[in-house]
Amino acid sequence: MSDLTPLRTSTALLTDHYELTMLQATLKSGTAHRRSVFEVFGRRLPNGRRYGVVAGTGRVLEMLPRFRFGDAELSFLAETEVVDQDTLDWLADYRFRGAIRGYAEGEVYFPGSPLLVVESTFAEAVLLETLVLSALNYDTAVASAASRMSRAAGTRPCADMGSRRAHEEAAVAAARAAVIGGFTSTSNLEAGRRYRLRTMGTAAHSFTLVHDTEREAFAAQVEALGRDTVLLLDTYDVEEALTTAIEIAGPELGGVRLDSGDLAIQASEVRERLDALGATGTRITVTSDLDEYAIAGLQAAPVDSYGVGTRLVTGSGAPTASLVYKLTAREGSDGQWQSVEKLAVGKGSTGGFKQAARTFAGDVACEESIGVPKLPSELIGSRPLMVDLVVDGEVDEGYTGAEGVRRAQKRHSASMAELPRTAHRLQDGEPAIPTAYYPTG
Amino acid sequence: MSDLTPLRTSTALLTDHYELTMLQATLKSGTAHRRSVFEVFGRRLPNGRRYGVVAGTGRVLEMLPRFRFGDAELSFLAETEVVDQDTLDWLADYRFRGAIRGYAEGEVYFPGSPLLVVESTFAEAVLLETLVLSALNYDTAVASAASRMSRAAGTRPCADMGSRRAHEEAAVAAARAAVIGGFTSTSNLEAGRRYRLRTMGTAAHSFTLVHDTEREAFAAQVEALGRDTVLLLDTYDVEEALTTAIEIAGPELGGVRLDSGDLAIQASEVRERLDALGATGTRITVTSDLDEYAIAGLQAAPVDSYGVGTRLVTGSGAPTASLVYKLTAREGSDGQWQSVEKLAVGKGSTGGFKQAARTFAGDVACEESIGVPKLPSELIGSRPLMVDLVVDGEVDEGYTGAEGVRRAQKRHSASMAELPRTAHRLQDGEPAIPTAYYPTG
Repeated sequence: MSDLTPLRTSTALLTDHYELTMLQATLKSGTAHRRSVFEVFGRRLPNGRRYGVVAGTGRVLEMLPRFRFGDAELSFLAETEVVDQDTLDWLADYRFRGAIRGYAEGEVYFPGSPLLVVESTFAEAVLLETLVLSALNYDTAVASAASRMSRAAGTRPCADMGSRRAHEEAAVAAARAAVIGGFTSTSNLEAGRRYRLRTMGTAAHSFTLVHDTEREAFAAQVEALGRDTVLLLDTYDVEEALTTAIEIAGPELGGVRLDSGDLAIQASEVRERLDALGATGTRITVTSDLDEYAIAGLQAAPVDSYGVGTRLVTGSGAPTASLVYKLTAREGSDGQWQSVEKLAVGKGSTGGFKQAARTFAGDVACEESIGVPKLPSELIGSRPLMVDLVVDGEVDEGYTGAEGVRRAQKRHSASMAELPRTAHRLQDGEPAIPTAYYPTG
Repeated sequence: MSDLTPLRTSTALLTDHYELTMLQATLKSGTAHRRSVFEVFGRRLPNGRRYGVVAGTGRVLEMLPRFRFGDAELSFLAETEVVDQDTLDWLADYRFRGAIRGYAEGEVYFPGSPLLVVESTFAEAVLLETLVLSALNYDTAVASAASRMSRAAGTRPCADMGSRRAHEEAAVAAARAAVIGGFTSTSNLEAGRRYRLRTMGTAAHSFTLVHDTEREAFAAQVEALGRDTVLLLDTYDVEEALTTAIEIAGPELGGVRLDSGDLAIQASEVRERLDALGATGTRITVTSDLDEYAIAGLQAAPVDSYGVGTRLVTGSGAPTASLVYKLTAREGSDGQWQSVEKLAVGKGSTGGFKQAARTFAGDVACEESIGVPKLPSELIGSRPLMVDLVVDGEVDEGYTGAEGVRRAQKRHSASMAELPRTAHRLQDGEPAIPTAYYPTG
């Protein structure tokens, strides 16, 4: 039994059939080797949100070196005749040799922000479409929800407890994205192991039920885990459970958890009773279908921390960020760069190379500025938003692993602090700052 | 570079912190070794749906033998002091030795259906909570959505094209669940490899854009992939693209894809024009944010197949099935079995051993019958719903792998054919059949 992370396995088939058939067709027509620029962006923010949070970038970078076609992958493609022999030969030698730049993870973004730009040949870049979008779409959805929940919670910590409501590997990514968005811990052990996140937990109803009485359950938990543990109160009767809890643990009891009923009323009653029993330092954690609105509604209640599950890992109503990966520029038959864009109804794209910066009025961000292809000189002084993530196929490791997450979390706090106060509004509305394009070509 | 499936890696940390601390506390109190029964069920179907579709069971069985604590897992738990040395020693020897029975994958279910029942010691069974729920909650959400979409599509095939809108591993599970729910193919290559599903694809707008003209792109695609390929029409102007397509491929062109605009109107116009050009056999595939309602709305349009993305992999508004894993019975201190249930407001559970069967009036299912602990004799003749999946820790391989998926797909069709016609209604309402409990204890 070795390491859990499948680091040695290929990520190359985590992609769509058509990417390989397009590869075959362009290898034949000769366009496969045209220098190309693909861009990841969102046409809009979901559900009238004020901002989004970039996440998944570090995971893309971790998976990129493993995007290689080995024997297992090539055999499958040969047997099922997805592509021809020439294409298989090309794939056997494939590794990404291009450049990727984009928004660093944790940065906030707005409609049209060029979150990731992949510059390479058409063939090299088109193959990455699905893997890049899978990681960015899911992780960004979760980080964006987490950030709103964290802001709604103010100084009270939020913990991710949503693993059971998401695919088992998505759960690990969700824990990581939640921390980038401002959560302080996760229940997911593998996320703890892989990214050095703080893990935490309380106890389940089954723990109380497997003992003959609630009293025996609480005694067992305190005996094994110490007085600083968190006891779950609502298996039978909350008031009775609370009395039992303090009898067993004394007023030094670390915390109690409420998981059902009217949490605001219960938290007040429990706080009063804890204080009356001298347990003034015992913390109250609430869980049970929380989202940013429920958290905001509990801010007047005497709650110390929030455990968030379903709504976190499903993006609080927006389970995917709906980011797209579009060709925006390529070499023509004359070797010159050309901007390209599709015209499809309601799904147009803006062609060309791009640079992005956040422009300020005093200390407050006032515009997402996108230069096509370059920012105009009057925007010197704006904060540049795009960084080099991959150069000549080499990943900048500073954006990956535990260190990448830690930096992304800090970056997100700093980025939020620059936004106008409207960014913190939970109600539907316009993005906190407008996006402006500057054609300078 | 070897196999993509991380078959040799442990799944043991894909779980919640509290399962291990509960283990430690019960090892200390002695309740860890009480025989226990945990049950997976849903309190309700999401969004007024008429039925749900069980999925993920085969994946649980595939992951179960790898739920072992090796060096990497134990080191992490030791370093982070999640549990004490006694617990680590116990974990080092852990493997599941109990029994799992439940609804076979593909079966339909209703509120309260005991989808999976895990019988073992408390310690052995409590550890599986998160992994079991992660697989069942996500896969069931997708299969349930896929089934409604497939029914709405009638005899027209549906293809999964949603990989890019889900976590990269969730995308593989989604493709698998979609096929169980009635989809005929997927764009996801890894799902094709792992479960022998039929993969398919058309072309992206980037393919058209990388060529100097749409004509050159179409010519390259037909040259490489043959006349039977599917050309994407809406990069620039659909009518012009259609003329070009038939000029290049002739009336033998396999198909065309529409990905934007008013699909019903466009499909009619394209069909008329194709017929006028003699391309009467050329198929029309539509994509672009389809769900069961959009598909139902297109049934009068001359569409041949549907490609479904975002709404499929996000469960069409219900991205998790909200299934829970609850202790329902356990040995007491006297060695006798006792039913247990929690009373938490709005979140109660029904204790005890259970048997489930589908009861019929003539050929049509009329009730989900649940005996606690056994079905009453008057229900002899009802169709039993629970099968043995794991016996003495040994997985029944017939429910896993490609064969498991094939059987689940057939089972789902058969199960749907038994339901009353109300099951096919897309509007919100009551479950297609009621759930009845028969206490026989």
